[in-house]
Amino acid sequence: MSDLLEHAQDQQRQAVREAAARLLEARSPGYTLPQPFYNDQRLFDLDMKEIFEREWLFAGLSSEIPLKGNFMTMDVGNSPIIIVRGDNGAIHAFHNVCRHRGSRLCSTERGKVAKLVCGYHKWTYELDGRLLFAGSDMGTTFDTSEYGLHPVHVRSAGGMLFINLAEQPENCEPFFKTLEFYLKPYDMENVKVAASSSIIEEGNWKLVIENNRECYHCDGSHPELLNTLQEFDDTDDPRATEAYKALVAKKQADWDAEKVPYQLVRFGRRNRMTRTPLLEGTVSMTTDGTPACKKLLGRLQSPDMGSLRILNLPNSWNHFMGDHAVVFQVDPIGPLKTRVTTKWLVHKDAVEGVDYDLAKLRKVWDATNDQDRQLVEENQRGVNSSAYQPGPYSATFEFGVVDFVDWYAERMQEALKGQQEPHLQLA
Amino acid sequence: MSDLLEHAQDQQRQAVREAAARLLEARSPGYTLPQPFYNDQRLFDLDMKEIFEREWLFAGLSSEIPLKGNFMTMDVGNSPIIIVRGDNGAIHAFHNVCRHRGSRLCSTERGKVAKLVCGYHKWTYELDGRLLFAGSDMGTTFDTSEYGLHPVHVRSAGGMLFINLAEQPENCEPFFKTLEFYLKPYDMENVKVAASSSIIEEGNWKLVIENNRECYHCDGSHPELLNTLQEFDDTDDPRATEAYKALVAKKQADWDAEKVPYQLVRFGRRNRMTRTPLLEGTVSMTTDGTPACKKLLGRLQSPDMGSLRILNLPNSWNHFMGDHAVVFQVDPIGPLKTRVTTKWLVHKDAVEGVDYDLAKLRKVWDATNDQDRQLVEENQRGVNSSAYQPGPYSATFEFGVVDFVDWYAERMQEALKGQQEPHLQLA
Amino acid sequence: MSDLLEHAQDQQRQAVREAAARLLEARSPGYTLPQPFYNDQRLFDLDMKEIFEREWLFAGLSSEIPLKGNFMTMDVGNSPIIIVRGDNGAIHAFHNVCRHRGSRLCSTERGKVAKLVCGYHKWTYELDGRLLFAGSDMGTTFDTSEYGLHPVHVRSAGGMLFINLAEQPENCEPFFKTLEFYLKPYDMENVKVAASSSIIEEGNWKLVIENNRECYHCDGSHPELLNTLQEFDDTDDPRATEAYKALVAKKQADWDAEKVPYQLVRFGRRNRMTRTPLLEGTVSMTTDGTPACKKLLGRLQSPDMGSLRILNLPNSWNHFMGDHAVVFQVDPIGPLKTRVTTKWLVHKDAVEGVDYDLAKLRKVWDATNDQDRQLVEENQRGVNSSAYQPGPYSATFEFGVVDFVDWYAERMQEALKGQQEPHLQLA
Ligand code: FES
Ligand code: FES
Ligand code: FES
Ligand SMILES: [Fe+3]
Ligand SMILES: [Fe+3]
Ligand SMILES: [Fe+3]
Repeated sequence: MSDLLEHAQDQQRQAVREAAARLLEARSPGYTLPQPFYNDQRLFDLDMKEIFEREWLFAGLSSEIPLKGNFMTMDVGNSPIIIVRGDNGAIHAFHNVCRHRGSRLCSTERGKVAKLVCGYHKWTYELDGRLLFAGSDMGTTFDTSEYGLHPVHVRSAGGMLFINLAEQPENCEPFFKTLEFYLKPYDMENVKVAASSSIIEEGNWKLVIENNRECYHCDGSHPELLNTLQEFDDTDDPRATEAYKALVAKKQADWDAEKVPYQLVRFGRRNRMTRTPLLEGTVSMTTDGTPACKKLLGRLQSPDMGSLRILNLPNSWNHFMGDHAVVFQVDPIGPLKTRVTTKWLVHKDAVEGVDYDLAKLRKVWDATNDQDRQLVEENQRGVNSSAYQPGPYSATFEFGVVDFVDWYAERMQEALKGQQEPHLQLA
Repeated sequence: MSDLLEHAQDQQRQAVREAAARLLEARSPGYTLPQPFYNDQRLFDLDMKEIFEREWLFAGLSSEIPLKGNFMTMDVGNSPIIIVRGDNGAIHAFHNVCRHRGSRLCSTERGKVAKLVCGYHKWTYELDGRLLFAGSDMGTTFDTSEYGLHPVHVRSAGGMLFINLAEQPENCEPFFKTLEFYLKPYDMENVKVAASSSIIEEGNWKLVIENNRECYHCDGSHPELLNTLQEFDDTDDPRATEAYKALVAKKQADWDAEKVPYQLVRFGRRNRMTRTPLLEGTVSMTTDGTPACKKLLGRLQSPDMGSLRILNLPNSWNHFMGDHAVVFQVDPIGPLKTRVTTKWLVHKDAVEGVDYDLAKLRKVWDATNDQDRQLVEENQRGVNSSAYQPGPYSATFEFGVVDFVDWYAERMQEALKGQQEPHLQLA
Repeated sequence: MSDLLEHAQDQQRQAVREAAARLLEARSPGYTLPQPFYNDQRLFDLDMKEIFEREWLFAGLSSEIPLKGNFMTMDVGNSPIIIVRGDNGAIHAFHNVCRHRGSRLCSTERGKVAKLVCGYHKWTYELDGRLLFAGSDMGTTFDTSEYGLHPVHVRSAGGMLFINLAEQPENCEPFFKTLEFYLKPYDMENVKVAASSSIIEEGNWKLVIENNRECYHCDGSHPELLNTLQEFDDTDDPRATEAYKALVAKKQADWDAEKVPYQLVRFGRRNRMTRTPLLEGTVSMTTDGTPACKKLLGRLQSPDMGSLRILNLPNSWNHFMGDHAVVFQVDPIGPLKTRVTTKWLVHKDAVEGVDYDLAKLRKVWDATNDQDRQLVEENQRGVNSSAYQPGPYSATFEFGVVDFVDWYAERMQEALKGQQEPHLQLA
């Protein structure tokens, strides 16, 4: 966006930034946020600018674009993005916006192309973003080298793709490298998306994330999920029983034997990964706890890998099991609307109907997603009330939500100060 | 809403309040309002805050929640409300917002519960709003007595329920007591809702009320209604003919014999009630003027009770006849969108298909509502024009509209001054 | 709109006007506009006020309202307009807003009436806008002469109707007179609308016009259209080949023989008209280039009239051929939504199924409209991106777009200065 445009609208924006800063300054830690953070269009715009255009966002899997010319698209707020495989396996990401008159370049969700050709007037870009052809007659002073696609940072870590729209993204290499290490056994270049769903939740993205960051609501809401899921994943959790600790110890011995990592690792409050057992006697998030896919992922020899949980604020949580993985991507659409995309991954050689049954594979998370959607939407309806006021989180059951809200508040406060410092930390 | 939040947004709101005050100061009495009062989002927000969150609103019938644990819900703007029957017949109203993370508590229109349990994390409230249970682990300093549901004032008057979202509602006891007296013969605890409809009108709530406050438009628009309805209800009306006066005198003698009140009573411009005959030879608002229900309401012995008309600004008008009653509730949704809910009441022992036929009961007001919806929507379309300017009301035909607009302007002007005084008055 | 209302909202509007002026001042000529001109609600409101409420807008055909009492309606932004045939063939236009309480007067697209009667309370206006009847009782001081309909300027030029909502419209007589001269051979009083379509494009009106002002995108997007259309229409165009020039010379000789005008005429950048041949061997915009209608328009003797192209910024382009004409009207609905209405005209005596086949008549422009809609919508999606920045037009292929954008910027800049001068000029 041009400086001038920024400038022209500065006054109003500045007032919003100051109001946001005051509200965050005065908030009560351990309590839900003040109402406007959940429903005000102007604070949503601020979220997009200061969080979603600055943080590393989960954007899909490198295995979704295996070949040169394969691309996939997504939207970060109003900004269409394209991720494309170029030469020598390189992965590029760009703003999906033609430098001529601004048309969206690729309009399908995925595809395969030789070059990136704008559908409007056929300006043609190399897979690395360089402008190759701009019509026959742009005048003698026109310099194609000035009109390449605007690049977006992209990092493939263990087969998960992350993009970052900032000019100078924060350095998250410690997280990415750890992620690579944790995902190595899954050989993510050889997975395929067996199924995917994209649902719209009529709620603010922060309520979607808050909902995910606790299992306090699971009991009574998620019968399918609770057939297999441990409601917590940390032996230091105050709720951890001796039985849980014994189960963990037993499974960790197995995992050591298989040489798969399991330790809880944190990078600030933004990233977290850990492997935790499923409920005793179950090995996969299916209704009966048996594997959904006969062919295991990567080099794994046993389906009994528990669940490798990976968190990437602000937009993704994930479960990797022995037989399949489920990855989640959160795309805010408006202050009261969020898209949640779920992908079920299996070994790329697994055959539907032979190695896995689609219905069995999807059932638990299709049900859980729909239940969470209803919870989020009811939460939003109450939060919109003139009587809403921030309420207290339970330190025991909702520390994950507190972590998220604190992370959000800190990041936003830094951004509003115009400062931004890396604050990686290893747990 | 927290003080801080108010403060953070004060500047913009203050500008809107000042603009509204200037517009009202300069308006021409006897003319329609300036355009923004009919279509501006910011003035709509002001209406919600200063009118709908301060006035007594018709909210349904006590007979709709006859038993302990029966509840019903409604929305006042963005604020979900619950009305519930507690111990000993007491009726309570609350903001339908959990004090934990703000989820809407009850999501259905009506139902029956032992306690009010939040669907999200099972916080549990007594029917009188006290928090009973907040999970097992809110920490040692958590005091449940601080987390009861936010109460909403509720008054049952003669079986009609009124709620008020203000902390200190205006004292409207003179109206409520008079209403009790007028409704006594109908024994409203023993009516049932035989039918109800809820329609959306694409128009500002004030245009919906203006439409209702005159019958200048009835001729040519409401053929079904005009089979039975008197277009005015006051012998002092300049349009009142000798024949009308004679009819009124004759009927009032009958009503005296039945000991039912009929006198025109006003409370400021906000409330008004009076009984007026239907057209000679008709006794009920049906297409042929005959009763819709064989079983009469309450202690009434004759169906020929005319129509008891009850007005409660800003959100209700009503017709009570001998055999049935029709009550109306207006819920603003946005500057250009209003919900109108109609309920047809009969004696609770009346049996459908035996004592009454649903189609006959509903026909007149289903037709009339739809006709009024069209009129309101065409009115809104014209009012949105850049060429719209306030036009003159007829003092003869539209004094009821003038009364409404004056009431609105006065209430708003008081609110904008930050003063609010009760101004009851008995006509 | 009352002065007071203006005043009450002045402060915010003034900020928007200043921001718009700064943005236009700093724009790069030859480049697309800054983002907010394509997607900001406040700049859209400014477009409506300063462009659509000030310019002459194409509004339909006089032959659509041939008889006294025939009317048709349209919307200019939020303002409903009525155009009606009165006495002695006179054509009147008014704001379609009752002076009583502001209801829209005529709610259908077209019709025939004796008087203009408001559906709400039957206020009745003469076809020339005078208020005849305002109910029986508006009081003794009420003066009907003060409550006529607010007039809108209307000019019929050669059978095309143009309206202007300004109080003192710019004098465009040179354009209108020239248009009359060019349209004379078509005898536009004797055409009929054989078909019409109204489509919604999810894009800003300026992107709709930009799309129309170049054929750089035609290749690859408009196969049906390119069967017959010349991509340019000026022998001075740098793309004009010797073959094109020879074709033009040959056709112009024919047209001279038929005494039909063809010369390129411009009125500033706003209006432009010229006749250009279709592709060699084709005479009408049909898929095979043969006439769609056997009966020719007006006094024409040959179908081979090329295409008379007429541009009227901001809302119309047109193609007049020998056998039929296609006229286009652009109605902005919101910053991201535009209605495009297309009408296919044939001789009024032509008989469907005998002289013309509807499917053949419509096919090319139904297809082309849908293709353009997709292009505009993709353009809008990219322009909404935070990464969008103004891009360069090709001077060769897109000079028509440059002309439009320059016209827009100039008109807006004049308006923002509060100055408005006629700037007619004959090419
Ligand atoms: S907008 Fe992409 S080539 Fe023109
Ligand atoms: S929001 Fe109600 S219990 Fe948590
Ligand atoms: S609004 Fe037109 S007659 Fe009343
Ligand atoms: Fe959940
Ligand atoms: Fe009515
Ligand atoms: Fe086109």
